[in-house]
Amino acid sequence: MVRNLGVLVATFCFLLGFAVGDWNILNHKRKNGLQISLKNYCEAWRMNVELHNIKDFKVVPEECVEYIKKYMTSTQYTIDSERTIDESRVYISTSCTFKKDGKDAWIFDIDDTLVSTVPYYKKNGVWGEKLNLTSLEEWMKKGKATALDHTLKLFNELKAQGVQIFLVSSRRETLRSATVDNLVDVGYFGWTSLFLRNSENENKNVQQYKAGVRQDLINKGYQVWGVVGDQWSSIEGIPSAIRTFKLPNPLYYVA
Amino acid sequence: MVRNLGVLVATFCFLLGFAVGDWNILNHKRKNGLQISLKNYCEAWRMNVELHNIKDFKVVPEECVEYIKKYMTSTQYTIDSERTIDESRVYISTSCTFKKDGKDAWIFDIDDTLVSTVPYYKKNGVWGEKLNLTSLEEWMKKGKATALDHTLKLFNELKAQGVQIFLVSSRRETLRSATVDNLVDVGYFGWTSLFLRNSENENKNVQQYKAGVRQDLINKGYQVWGVVGDQWSSIEGIPSAIRTFKLPNPLYYVA
Repeated sequence: MVRNLGVLVATFCFLLGFAVGDWNILNHKRKNGLQISLKNYCEAWRMNVELHNIKDFKVVPEECVEYIKKYMTSTQYTIDSERTIDESRVYISTSCTFKKDGKDAWIFDIDDTLVSTVPYYKKNGVWGEKLNLTSLEEWMKKGKATALDHTLKLFNELKAQGVQIFLVSSRRETLRSATVDNLVDVGYFGWTSLFLRNSENENKNVQQYKAGVRQDLINKGYQVWGVVGDQWSSIEGIPSAIRTFKLPNPLYYVA
Repeated sequence: MVRNLGVLVATFCFLLGFAVGDWNILNHKRKNGLQISLKNYCEAWRMNVELHNIKDFKVVPEECVEYIKKYMTSTQYTIDSERTIDESRVYISTSCTFKKDGKDAWIFDIDDTLVSTVPYYKKNGVWGEKLNLTSLEEWMKKGKATALDHTLKLFNELKAQGVQIFLVSSRRETLRSATVDNLVDVGYFGWTSLFLRNSENENKNVQQYKAGVRQDLINKGYQVWGVVGDQWSSIEGIPSAIRTFKLPNPLYYVA
């Protein structure tokens, strides 16, 4: 009975919203005769970013800034990310036969993988703006990035299984101490090595730099079971890991 | 004024829907204290399929069958796919310097890339069922697959630029004549070669088979500028194309 009422109200709202709301608010673009709402348009943009069909974008399209801001602070973003981590957990429990010889390795990105930069975007209101590295690094120095709880949980599970954890970030070497403080402060400790960008690798793009780190680890005898990152540049490139897991991130693009 | 009315109605509906509808219909799963609706859950599943974090699924999860059916027949699916094709068009116009020597090549999948299998799922009501190859092939033999209009447009644009078009499908050789008839019937003609699975390559998985075709083309002097497909197995593997474009498809998985 109450369920039926729910269905009725939902249907009524849907139709009413369509009749009155969509007509005015959402009728943003038309194409091939299809009525396309702004939400349709921005959702397609986000999906194609995650499919890696859209590359190298410098900013979120102006008309989708509100939509992306809403997504990045939504339950959906949390659930999407949790599912990514859950899938890596399924892979670990079903397919990883750790050798426990000190050479089992797992790689994590830092920003928007271990910790969130959303507080930076919130504080500075820069959702639709081109990345200002000076301002971002100033914020990073303060060490206020918050943990992404689902990744922290996975981090601890891997640690408990004796897996060596490598953090490979495109943050610069000058941020080492602030980064370590921030990570420890929100609960991350016990990693094996933290790789940051320095004068030796700053001439490479991020994908080359991160693939180079994987190559070094493999040369040292590590088995890289997995990588978790929010950018395709953390995941693509050769050598790869056995499995890779891409967290959603439509907020910025690192080539 | 009318716009404000739209906003008011939308807000009212949102709140009413939340108060009455969500409470009963959508409060499906809880995790870490978050209230997760069935839509949240299924959207996260779909997103992680497209991110290629979820692999090798045999069926759509039972609780998401309605959601995926709705998506695959929605404007959103059309818009998402159109955006994929639009991005390949941007790439072609900005980055492809075709040599016009008869060796410029582009590769397309067939099913859910050139033509849609959604009519099959609709007709047979098999959205949540494991793939029945016999029944699918019977349907394919009838040649009733409909064109995906945005891909047809791209196909014709490439053809007009003198690009050699290769169709690489995991359909079997026995379906050749029905496939050709169906393609021509909905507007596709003028491709250079149609590759189907035969006794020579049926021992390979789809990714190996498709990478093998690309290798053969490269050996013959073709420049493979791009691949458009709806499965990661059409896109991953070495050698790759210069760029690849992944259409959305949460309906089935081809390894």
